[in-house]
Formats: sequence, C-alpha cells, structure tokens
Amino acid sequence: MGFLRVLFLLPLFSIAFSEDALHAHPLPRPLILEYTEMIEPKIEDEEAGLRCTSWRFAAETNNLNPWKTIPSECVDYVKNYMMGWGYTLDLERVSNEAAVYARGAELMGDGKDAWVFDVDETLLSNLPYYTRHGYGLEIFDPVEFDKWVDEAMAPAIEPSLRLYEEVLDLGFKIFLLTGRSEKQRDITVQNLMNVGFRNWDKLMLRASDDHGKLATVYKSEKRGDMVKEGYRILGNSGDQWSDILGSSMSARSFKLPNPMYYIP
Amino acid sequence: MGFLRVLFLLPLFSIAFSEDALHAHPLPRPLILEYTEMIEPKIEDEEAGLRCTSWRFAAETNNLNPWKTIPSECVDYVKNYMMGWGYTLDLERVSNEAAVYARGAELMGDGKDAWVFDVDETLLSNLPYYTRHGYGLEIFDPVEFDKWVDEAMAPAIEPSLRLYEEVLDLGFKIFLLTGRSEKQRDITVQNLMNVGFRNWDKLMLRASDDHGKLATVYKSEKRGDMVKEGYRILGNSGDQWSDILGSSMSARSFKLPNPMYYIP
Repeated sequence: MGFLRVLFLLPLFSIAFSEDALHAHPLPRPLILEYTEMIEPKIEDEEAGLRCTSWRFAAETNNLNPWKTIPSECVDYVKNYMMGWGYTLDLERVSNEAAVYARGAELMGDGKDAWVFDVDETLLSNLPYYTRHGYGLEIFDPVEFDKWVDEAMAPAIEPSLRLYEEVLDLGFKIFLLTGRSEKQRDITVQNLMNVGFRNWDKLMLRASDDHGKLATVYKSEKRGDMVKEGYRILGNSGDQWSDILGSSMSARSFKLPNPMYYIP
Repeated sequence: MGFLRVLFLLPLFSIAFSEDALHAHPLPRPLILEYTEMIEPKIEDEEAGLRCTSWRFAAETNNLNPWKTIPSECVDYVKNYMMGWGYTLDLERVSNEAAVYARGAELMGDGKDAWVFDVDETLLSNLPYYTRHGYGLEIFDPVEFDKWVDEAMAPAIEPSLRLYEEVLDLGFKIFLLTGRSEKQRDITVQNLMNVGFRNWDKLMLRASDDHGKLATVYKSEKRGDMVKEGYRILGNSGDQWSDILGSSMSARSFKLPNPMYYIP
C-alpha cells in the first residue's frame, strides 16, 4: 500500500533539471501527470491567494511566531504549491544557488571542510505522508508519522541529491543532522541509500537525552561538537530555520521551502 | 518636485490596518488610488509570474548569491508587488508578528532591554525613489540615492511605525542601526522625526572607518558594542539579512520584505 502510494509521487522528484530550466521557456513539464485532481494550479479565491502567499512568505522568512498547523484557508494554496510547479521551482533554485556557492568556496582540502544536510524535507520527501494528512492542516501525529518513517519509502528530493553529489565531488565531508530518533537509524540509512544518498561522513540523530531539546538547541550542540573536532562548516541545507540558526552556524545556509510544518 | 512625487505615494503607507484585516474579507482598499497605471495586479505571463515568485522567495530567504539588480523579466512583477497589496500585506504581517513577540518577551526592566531597527525599507520607505529607478532593475547609484536621502522626504512605513511605538511603550530601548553615513545624521534625524519616529535611544550610522565594511560586519560590530554595554537585544527588524545575521544576533529577528535590492 505504502509502496503504491509512493509510486505515483515519484515523478515529482525524478525530473532531470538543468540550471537553465529555471530561466527558459517553457516551464518544466507538469510534475504529477498521474494526479489529475491536482493539475489545476489556480486559486479560486484570489484574495485568499494573496493572503496565503503573504503567509508563506512570513513562514519561509521565519517571521511567524511558532505555529502548529497551516491556516485553514490556505489548504488548497499549500496543496497546489506542493503538488504544482512552485515547490519544484523553489527546490531547483535553492539547489542551484547552493551549488554555485559550493563551487566558489575555498576548501582547505584537509578533510575538515564540511557541509551539513538536514534529512526530512531536505534530502528525503515526506510529501506522500502529508498528501494523506492535509498538507499541514492536521496537527502533527508522531505515532502516525513514525509508521511512515518505518516504511523507509520517502523519495529523494532530486535537486538536493544533485547538490549532495556535487558537494561530495568537490571534496566536502557531508554530515547529516536530523531530528529523527537514534532508534530510527537503521531505517533512515536504508531509506537514504535506497534513493541514492551515499558516502556521508556521519549521520547524527537524537539520542535519548536530546529528546527534550528544541531542535535549534540540539542542532547547535551537534554543530558545536563538529567545530570542536576541527570541522569548518561551510554550507548547511535545511527546510527549517531551526536547522540553520543558533550557535556554531554555517558560513552560509540554504533554506529549502516547507510551508507544511514548523519545528522550533 | 520631490515633495509632489511623495504626495501621491503617501497613501500607500497611511492606511490604518487592524490585525484582523489580514484575515478578513475583503482586502484593505486598493493602496494607490491615484496611480491607475498600477492598479492591474495580474501578471500577463503566468510562467514568468511563477518564476518571479520563486525568485522573490529565494531572495527573501537569503538563498540567492549576491545580486546587483532584479531579473529583467521580473520588473513588472516587482512593480506590481511593491505598488499593490502584496507588499503592504507582508509589511502588516511582519509588524503584527513582531508585536505579538514583543508583548510576550520577558523584559528585565532595567533599561537594558533593546530592540534594533534598521532605517531604509524598515522604518523609512525609499519607494518614491525606486519608482523612478526601475524598482531595482537599475544598478544602484549612490550619488542619485544620496540626493534623494538629502531631501528627507522618505515616508514612514506605517506598520513599522506602529510596531516602533508599541515596542517603545512596552519599555524597550530603541536602537537605530543604519548603513547610512554619519554625514547624513542630521537629515536622517529630520526625516525620521518629520514622519513620526521619536524617542530612540541611539542612532548609529557608518563612521568613516566603517565604510569599507560589509554591512553584516559593520552591524555585527555595532550590536557587539551594545552587548558589551550590557544591552540584551531581544528584537531586531530589518529588510536585509545583513541587518540580522552575523554575531551578537538578536534573540529574535524579523525580516521585512524587500525584493528591490540586496546589501551583503
């Protein structure tokens, strides 16, 4: 069942993009040919569309106070964004900009140049789960979500996989820093490897004494440990500001889009 | 001349908004009744609209590598955004979210609780200047821009003025931290006071030895000085990430929209 659900979503993350695609006419082909219900990208209520764009801007720039669900009037907006071109264009762009930065970064070449990637909604997509759970309208259910994680069926976010591979080729050490639990290590490794992620240096998950911590604190501590070990964190990719802000921040960070949920 | 140009733009910043206005139907009345050329909010090229929205999000989330002008295909998009509802809705929301945070912040009440505001595109709007200079399509011309600054005619960004007054009433000390030159102190004070800003604690401008510094470095140093003097920077409002990131960062920052220019 889970497998079948994923199958029709895979095309979303399997389109080969070139850097030029962002600037060329026409747009890349529709993402989800199989999903006719979603093809219509128009927001019927133009005013709601404006307000929801404003809400998304506020969410993506970290201006909103902590929020648990998306605004109910923005469900169709978020669905259309996630399933239409908007999300893919944004993923493409952040990957391309990060690659440009990575190519220009001055590496010492002593094995201590590091790039940090978050996992969920950064390398792996849980969109198949969120399509069944209101695109962020439902309050997060950790039990249900963990069942989905245990399936190890999250597809790769293809623009991130391309960035990942380029960063690796450039000579960065890759660190994966996730809010997932240490108990989910094996299934996470399996999922990551199944969809093409290889050769990371370290996968850091929440140990039992990390579970009470805010993500910002937990991730800052882990970056702090890296710095103590002599790593220079030159790049950091994450879909949450709690992946990016705090202490021992990366020289440069890249915020992937995620209008579905917020982790403080 | 400058005065007349500003007059027709003033309504943009003079509408009284309530916090409910963001959620209520219909939207606040059109912003620029006098500016019929701008009333049509549609982007003719829907694909360009999607790409320009993606570009704007990348700019606002600090994902773009340094840029000097907006993409030429996005001139109409940026113009419509700035002169239409989009910009105002975004300004309103960031002001409201910042006010919610400010009301809930734990102040020590010892006169050391501080809020930092940037000036240009945060408290004062240079939109009258940018309407005459392509909304960011023209390369920044410091000589022309300084002439505009010397007119001291920049209108207040009204949602920021309301936030400013509330933050002041709550007992914060207000620090203005601007990339403007020390030579522009008097004209800046005059402009700020003319449009309603009062009772700031300190206005910090670039001294002669600050002029070669990146804004991120200069502003981090100034915040560092504040911290050394015992201030706790609880809030920070700015339209540039160089207002926000760096060292001695605020406990919480608010990114105002600005798709017209980028300051590293």
